Amino acid sequence: MDRSRALELLRQVSSGALTPDEAVQRLAMAPFESLEFATVDHHRALRQGYPEVIYAEGKTPAQVVAIAERTLAHGGSALATRTDAATRQAMLARFPEAVANDVARTVRVGAVAPKAKGRGTILIVTAGTSDLPVAEEAAESALAMGNIVGRLNDVGVAGLHRLLANGGALQSASVVIVVAGMDGALPSVVGGLVACPVIAVPTSVGYGASLGGLAALFTMLNSCAAGVTVVNIDNGFGAAAAATRIVARDSAQP
Amino acid sequence: MDRSRALELLRQVSSGALTPDEAVQRLAMAPFESLEFATVDHHRALRQGYPEVIYAEGKTPAQVVAIAERTLAHGGSALATRTDAATRQAMLARFPEAVANDVARTVRVGAVAPKAKGRGTILIVTAGTSDLPVAEEAAESALAMGNIVGRLNDVGVAGLHRLLANGGALQSASVVIVVAGMDGALPSVVGGLVACPVIAVPTSVGYGASLGGLAALFTMLNSCAAGVTVVNIDNGFGAAAAATRIVARDSAQP
Amino acid sequence: MDRSRALELLRQVSSGALTPDEAVQRLAMAPFESLEFATVDHHRALRQGYPEVIYAEGKTPAQVVAIAERTLAHGGSALATRTDAATRQAMLARFPEAVANDVARTVRVGAVAPKAKGRGTILIVTAGTSDLPVAEEAAESALAMGNIVGRLNDVGVAGLHRLLANGGALQSASVVIVVAGMDGALPSVVGGLVACPVIAVPTSVGYGASLGGLAALFTMLNSCAAGVTVVNIDNGFGAAAAATRIVARDSAQP
Amino acid sequence: MDRSRALELLRQVSSGALTPDEAVQRLAMAPFESLEFATVDHHRALRQGYPEVIYAEGKTPAQVVAIAERTLAHGGSALATRTDAATRQAMLARFPEAVANDVARTVRVGAVAPKAKGRGTILIVTAGTSDLPVAEEAAESALAMGNIVGRLNDVGVAGLHRLLANGGALQSASVVIVVAGMDGALPSVVGGLVACPVIAVPTSVGYGASLGGLAALFTMLNSCAAGVTVVNIDNGFGAAAAATRIVARDSAQP
Amino acid sequence: MDRSRALELLRQVSSGALTPDEAVQRLAMAPFESLEFATVDHHRALRQGYPEVIYAEGKTPAQVVAIAERTLAHGGSALATRTDAATRQAMLARFPEAVANDVARTVRVGAVAPKAKGRGTILIVTAGTSDLPVAEEAAESALAMGNIVGRLNDVGVAGLHRLLANGGALQSASVVIVVAGMDGALPSVVGGLVACPVIAVPTSVGYGASLGGLAALFTMLNSCAAGVTVVNIDNGFGAAAAATRIVARDSAQP
Amino acid sequence: MDRSRALELLRQVSSGALTPDEAVQRLAMAPFESLEFATVDHHRALRQGYPEVIYAEGKTPAQVVAIAERTLAHGGSALATRTDAATRQAMLARFPEAVANDVARTVRVGAVAPKAKGRGTILIVTAGTSDLPVAEEAAESALAMGNIVGRLNDVGVAGLHRLLANGGALQSASVVIVVAGMDGALPSVVGGLVACPVIAVPTSVGYGASLGGLAALFTMLNSCAAGVTVVNIDNGFGAAAAATRIVARDSAQP
Amino acid sequence: MDRSRALELLRQVSSGALTPDEAVQRLAMAPFESLEFATVDHHRALRQGYPEVIYAEGKTPAQVVAIAERTLAHGGSALATRTDAATRQAMLARFPEAVANDVARTVRVGAVAPKAKGRGTILIVTAGTSDLPVAEEAAESALAMGNIVGRLNDVGVAGLHRLLANGGALQSASVVIVVAGMDGALPSVVGGLVACPVIAVPTSVGYGASLGGLAALFTMLNSCAAGVTVVNIDNGFGAAAAATRIVARDSAQP
Amino acid sequence: MDRSRALELLRQVSSGALTPDEAVQRLAMAPFESLEFATVDHHRALRQGYPEVIYAEGKTPAQVVAIAERTLAHGGSALATRTDAATRQAMLARFPEAVANDVARTVRVGAVAPKAKGRGTILIVTAGTSDLPVAEEAAESALAMGNIVGRLNDVGVAGLHRLLANGGALQSASVVIVVAGMDGALPSVVGGLVACPVIAVPTSVGYGASLGGLAALFTMLNSCAAGVTVVNIDNGFGAAAAATRIVARDSAQP
Repeated sequence: MDRSRALELLRQVSSGALTPDEAVQRLAMAPFESLEFATVDHHRALRQGYPEVIYAEGKTPAQVVAIAERTLAHGGSALATRTDAATRQAMLARFPEAVANDVARTVRVGAVAPKAKGRGTILIVTAGTSDLPVAEEAAESALAMGNIVGRLNDVGVAGLHRLLANGGALQSASVVIVVAGMDGALPSVVGGLVACPVIAVPTSVGYGASLGGLAALFTMLNSCAAGVTVVNIDNGFGAAAAATRIVARDSAQP
Repeated sequence: MDRSRALELLRQVSSGALTPDEAVQRLAMAPFESLEFATVDHHRALRQGYPEVIYAEGKTPAQVVAIAERTLAHGGSALATRTDAATRQAMLARFPEAVANDVARTVRVGAVAPKAKGRGTILIVTAGTSDLPVAEEAAESALAMGNIVGRLNDVGVAGLHRLLANGGALQSASVVIVVAGMDGALPSVVGGLVACPVIAVPTSVGYGASLGGLAALFTMLNSCAAGVTVVNIDNGFGAAAAATRIVARDSAQP
Repeated sequence: MDRSRALELLRQVSSGALTPDEAVQRLAMAPFESLEFATVDHHRALRQGYPEVIYAEGKTPAQVVAIAERTLAHGGSALATRTDAATRQAMLARFPEAVANDVARTVRVGAVAPKAKGRGTILIVTAGTSDLPVAEEAAESALAMGNIVGRLNDVGVAGLHRLLANGGALQSASVVIVVAGMDGALPSVVGGLVACPVIAVPTSVGYGASLGGLAALFTMLNSCAAGVTVVNIDNGFGAAAAATRIVARDSAQP
Repeated sequence: MDRSRALELLRQVSSGALTPDEAVQRLAMAPFESLEFATVDHHRALRQGYPEVIYAEGKTPAQVVAIAERTLAHGGSALATRTDAATRQAMLARFPEAVANDVARTVRVGAVAPKAKGRGTILIVTAGTSDLPVAEEAAESALAMGNIVGRLNDVGVAGLHRLLANGGALQSASVVIVVAGMDGALPSVVGGLVACPVIAVPTSVGYGASLGGLAALFTMLNSCAAGVTVVNIDNGFGAAAAATRIVARDSAQP
Repeated sequence: MDRSRALELLRQVSSGALTPDEAVQRLAMAPFESLEFATVDHHRALRQGYPEVIYAEGKTPAQVVAIAERTLAHGGSALATRTDAATRQAMLARFPEAVANDVARTVRVGAVAPKAKGRGTILIVTAGTSDLPVAEEAAESALAMGNIVGRLNDVGVAGLHRLLANGGALQSASVVIVVAGMDGALPSVVGGLVACPVIAVPTSVGYGASLGGLAALFTMLNSCAAGVTVVNIDNGFGAAAAATRIVARDSAQP
Repeated sequence: MDRSRALELLRQVSSGALTPDEAVQRLAMAPFESLEFATVDHHRALRQGYPEVIYAEGKTPAQVVAIAERTLAHGGSALATRTDAATRQAMLARFPEAVANDVARTVRVGAVAPKAKGRGTILIVTAGTSDLPVAEEAAESALAMGNIVGRLNDVGVAGLHRLLANGGALQSASVVIVVAGMDGALPSVVGGLVACPVIAVPTSVGYGASLGGLAALFTMLNSCAAGVTVVNIDNGFGAAAAATRIVARDSAQP
Repeated sequence: MDRSRALELLRQVSSGALTPDEAVQRLAMAPFESLEFATVDHHRALRQGYPEVIYAEGKTPAQVVAIAERTLAHGGSALATRTDAATRQAMLARFPEAVANDVARTVRVGAVAPKAKGRGTILIVTAGTSDLPVAEEAAESALAMGNIVGRLNDVGVAGLHRLLANGGALQSASVVIVVAGMDGALPSVVGGLVACPVIAVPTSVGYGASLGGLAALFTMLNSCAAGVTVVNIDNGFGAAAAATRIVARDSAQP
Repeated sequence: MDRSRALELLRQVSSGALTPDEAVQRLAMAPFESLEFATVDHHRALRQGYPEVIYAEGKTPAQVVAIAERTLAHGGSALATRTDAATRQAMLARFPEAVANDVARTVRVGAVAPKAKGRGTILIVTAGTSDLPVAEEAAESALAMGNIVGRLNDVGVAGLHRLLANGGALQSASVVIVVAGMDGALPSVVGGLVACPVIAVPTSVGYGASLGGLAALFTMLNSCAAGVTVVNIDNGFGAAAAATRIVARDSAQP
């Protein structure tokens, strides 16, 4: 409810085009609209490719299906993360067109046309095969948000030649999400190789003093490559959301 | 040294246009050029606005000045971070045109024309006045990398109205860097208000169980606003570098 | 055995109304009574609305039922927390009038008439739906202690407008219990909005570096809103007991 | 800007009593007024006895004096915490009527008439003499907020008889602030003795595995006395603010 | 192999009573005997009442039974700790005279006559009922080592009168083992009440920030009562062994 | 105030030998006397050799001297720990007969005749020379409490032969205090060699991941030698107090 | 592709012995060969006795078998670690000649002739029987890499005589791997007894404050025996790989 | 005193060549000699190039000089680590031929002829210039132990090409010591490039969440390159000792 819209509304009241009662109905929304700069933008952000995201952990299959039904009624697409097998089965039974990913533990429903013209590719890189579940959660989330996604797997720093042999893919990415557990060293190396934004995702992969991913997390926070940012342990969805915030800017510009 | 360039070189040898000895000189560089995709790009990244950065902690004023002289000879600009008063004085004595910032503990030398056309503004937000040193380090670093910088200070969550009153500045930013100590709650709030990338910087401000900034760090990693990324405690420079990786993409596009 | 009662007893001995042997029988209880200021008060506190609380974790259903029987024989009401489904079933089978709350994992037995005249409302606020089990434990405990309870759910800081739209409920509360996991940022925001006591309850909700609730705990301890206090992780019962200590003062005053 | 006030304004526009331009001026304030419930209340809270608080750590004596001058111009009183000796001297030089407390490291300026009618006493209890600086910060802060303050020092659990001998003081308190370092056991004991609210303040006193106060902090969070709440390590000011939130309710009630 | 015994052996060789080959057999044991001061004593310690202790965690019932059979063949008694139900059943089937304690998760076999004349009583005190498993492990272990054991349960600091009412038992103990979880405050109080040795055992009882017993452990290490010592979390057996080291000294003295 | 004393007092009232008012004065002390079992014993413990202990950290030399003067007036001896050089100088100036120990940072005043007949020796063992300050604090404290003290220095586990060569001293000790930093391995070895009580004192000696003594502390808590107990990091005084609790039992027995 | 080999190739092109197209095929490998110093060496390292290692945790039996089939096709041998019973069964069904070790949770396939001539023995020492799974993983891994392996079990520091009685085995080892949980003290003792390399492996054995092996880990890092190195908790495989890096040097030398 | 030497001695007694009294004199040393395998070897290890090492932290310059004098009298060489400037000056004043290294904070005295024939080179690699003090301590220590030392500085993973350009040095090393702070990623990369032993040294370089080197330590323990071992934070001396244990084996072999 910016000044010009408010003035317009008041003029309609002044001219009799709107009764005070009709006007107050509109103003009733004003407290929200006065915050709308936030919520409108928030909604715009969501509409730029985020389906409603359902965090399935701790919810029954029936609950997830019910929320997805409601979400689809409004938005046309839905994404559930951290699902178990039963939930994925229930979702597929209800929405035969859904895409379930057992590694990522996600289900997507509703066709998401790639809106990513001009956005370039979000490249998701893993250090080892055991980082795949987190990487796949990032990939599925990024796809659900309308992005183009590339993958580069199992290129950890103990075998540098595998990474270096894929220089082309790294160079042509718009954003690189690097998923790594154990020593979490890969984002530092990638951050030194590319100029684009690098988002590091520590995983809880490892044993002994991996501390459930804290070791990798601290490695990444202390990255000697300037400008690497970090999200929470195993948070593939969060990395995808951060990457989308970045690439969405391009397509949003006139 | 891609296939076509290599074939061309070999044909020149085959045709006698190049002697084997001349050819081997060129191939001698091949191991590096085969990695050049990285280093070239890395250099490109640096040339997009990064002056050579001198981390001054543990160096004498004389050492910092000496490194700055060498840097300026090559690149035309230099940035020193974590300087003490003596170092800033020594730098100003040697480079009268330098810009020293006592709060940020930085010195910049060499005019950096804003290259930020099309990049938009990097907005640096602080929760409290004691977060200023880190925020100023971020600001000085971002300026040194050729960006346009905005500031929004002392808008912590215990007085929400101050933040909400500045919706316009938040909405028009390209990237928001949120600097906060103590409870580190501000990035979650900002992340819910804007659609653009949000980089959170925990500071070591606080006492008691602030754990030298770890409390704020973990708050930020667990942000309930999707897509907020985090850099190391007090790492204003790192946040600026990450923000520059993001905004540099815009101006780099044709 | 305060001074006046002791003097009275001694006068009875002096006057011959009491033999020394009879008097010493009464004094035999004195060591306890000399501490009675504590125990009497402690009992008074409990009688101000606390039923006997049974912490059910690690107890069999039969044990919980047996303790509840004994408690009801003395006090007329009982509350069991951290019950599993089997215990709740056993309690309902034995006490058909009991109120079992599956989310809170509590069972209340015995009618507790709201003693809360003049106490006002204890408002329980959650950041997200997954904080509900802890919030419900707080609510059930507060109800069992004779309070009036209000609820405000899912108003986390990533969507501030939901919280701000409920200003009225916040303003009219006597005490606000804020339950939040993940970044634990909500109590700081609420603490800035209201003048009444705010009790923060961190929950173990979250993943990655939520550290089983420690991240939220430290956020809350470092709250930038002055005068927010904290109880242990997931300790809904403790928050309710603390709130009751506060509101009970009002109704206890002449 | 509630519904009835908005309708009234619109009717004035409709009737011509107010031009659209005049009306929009009033509505321009609406976004703030829609939040006013918060800020008004926040201000009310502050006006209920909080002087402006100046956290002096990291500020020069001159800066503290300057802020105090401004604060006094508006509010009539000021409190500076965490001051060093030089700052206290500077404050006393500028404000000869100021009250400086070397143990608490505070300076209060401006007469604060006890507003605490009906509030009862805030009793501040310490386990040992080395907890005094934190306890004194709590006491000075509570006094500055218009409260009546009692003190009970050096009654740690290793010599229970000292605590039990002061049953009367404990019983007559409205709120008890318990300050303890080392094993942090005192709040559990006090919490079992009294029915009123108990706020525990861990101190960084101790050596070895006291972990800078974390040991005492965790003891207090795990208190076996129900309803004890905790503030941050060494946070005497925070405990006083929390106690004031509690007792201010009494005097605020009609 | 002390000097006199060595001389004797050499004289036997010199006199022909022993051949060099026979003597070398005896000397082959010399490296052990040269350490015998240790091992003899160690054995003496064990013989002072320690049966062979079998830590059952990670062993099958059959393995525990087999070890117990071997132990009994040599020493006449056996103690198994951390047994599961199946192991206790298997032990009782094989040794019908065994004493199984389901709470302590121990099985004792072989009659241990109390050797504790002059040793006095080892008093085992618990803060709450949930500390019982650890306290019972301590009690069973102490009994198996030939001690007289007393018990004082559920006398935590939140209800001091229960503890103070048992002053006699505390005063007459030779050693007090204090078992407490949650805030771990009880050993400090007991340490202030008695002059005899106090051994504190933290338990992993609690939730939230009890950190699996670390909170109680650090409380105890920081005990403000001088001369309280601590064993590992949940280590009832260790506390009993330490107490036996203490009381065994009395009966061992001429 | 036991039964017979109470009866006697009441008989005096009954006979008129005491007025009720006089009697109530005596009973006023009853709450204390009802706890006297504790305090009497506590005093007895102190009188068994503990001088009043002054923890000097954070106190001025003048304050320490003043407290010592008062202590000496009552008890004839005093011990100050954690003194700095200035405090030791001030103490020696005031009490020329005092014994100052620069390594231990202690000052003892007042002749303490060894009361240790029948107590045997408290043997203090160190792993390395840098553990000496803590060991000396233990030794001085033990001496001040009237014990006989033995020393065995620099016998860490990396050179076992030094320890094994001193079997005699170990075997003849009544209690062994083992002081060790770095890996903290020595108590486990000593605990396996002797049957008497072993008290482990971790020191903050070390660098890198010694974590200020936490590494040694945890080693000791996890000691594979049964019955080793632990006191806080660097707490030489506490170890001496614990050892005195043990050996005092012998001489206290008829 | 070093200079001389490149020159030779170019001369062949110059002389017509090689067409440019044939040459480019060879050069196509150059980027890799330019890194080949690494990969060749890496391969050499692997060929010196490392079979392909399959980390089985999180893989299905079928997946492990499939990877082993592929590995055997190329290398003739395979090692799977962290297998469960089902995987070991599946491996034995598919490869009847495989060696499965239930304690180590490993399966080896393919005959590995000891290449260890001149390498000497890798001695694997355990503190207690519960360290066996990790020690056996180390042993199986070392065997799979072509080493000669010795074992010395249950020689923890609480019974030093057992360790000292095996001086011969210790002295004749080329490398000693010391596996220990709980207090982790054994590597310090062994490090003081032998001159050869000592690799310490902390295990997660223990309870209470063993912190899942962190206590033992920190003990070992702080070892007072100079030159002891450490691998991750429970990482038997890693210790074997480190030992093989050491002993392989001997046989690799001309 | 092995079997054959003992038999020989006994035969001499049997034949009368030795009296029992003479024989017992020799056996008197047996307890030590029976351990001598250890001490002899330990000495041998030391004689293989270790000068007596003086840890100077906490010692006065005079003390360090005095110890060095004694050491030189016996062994001909001495090494002091962690010296301050005053100590280095005092050492140079007393031993003009000493070699002081200000960066490493070491002083070496006494010519150490390289004994390293056949040992190859110990290559010390640093990630950044701020790791130099630790690397130099390692280098000075390794030199003092008679090794040949190589250096490769400032080759951190953020600029991989610098490391890869030095493949030759890496390939020809016998042992590589990798010194790195911040993210500690370099050892993983080096471990993947070379086949020889790799010893990782975390440094306390960094800020924020580097946790005083713990972040780098955990990275290294979790290295994804098999067979990398780790020493304590900043422990350059320890790494050199470990490397010497490895290379000394070569020259020690016949």
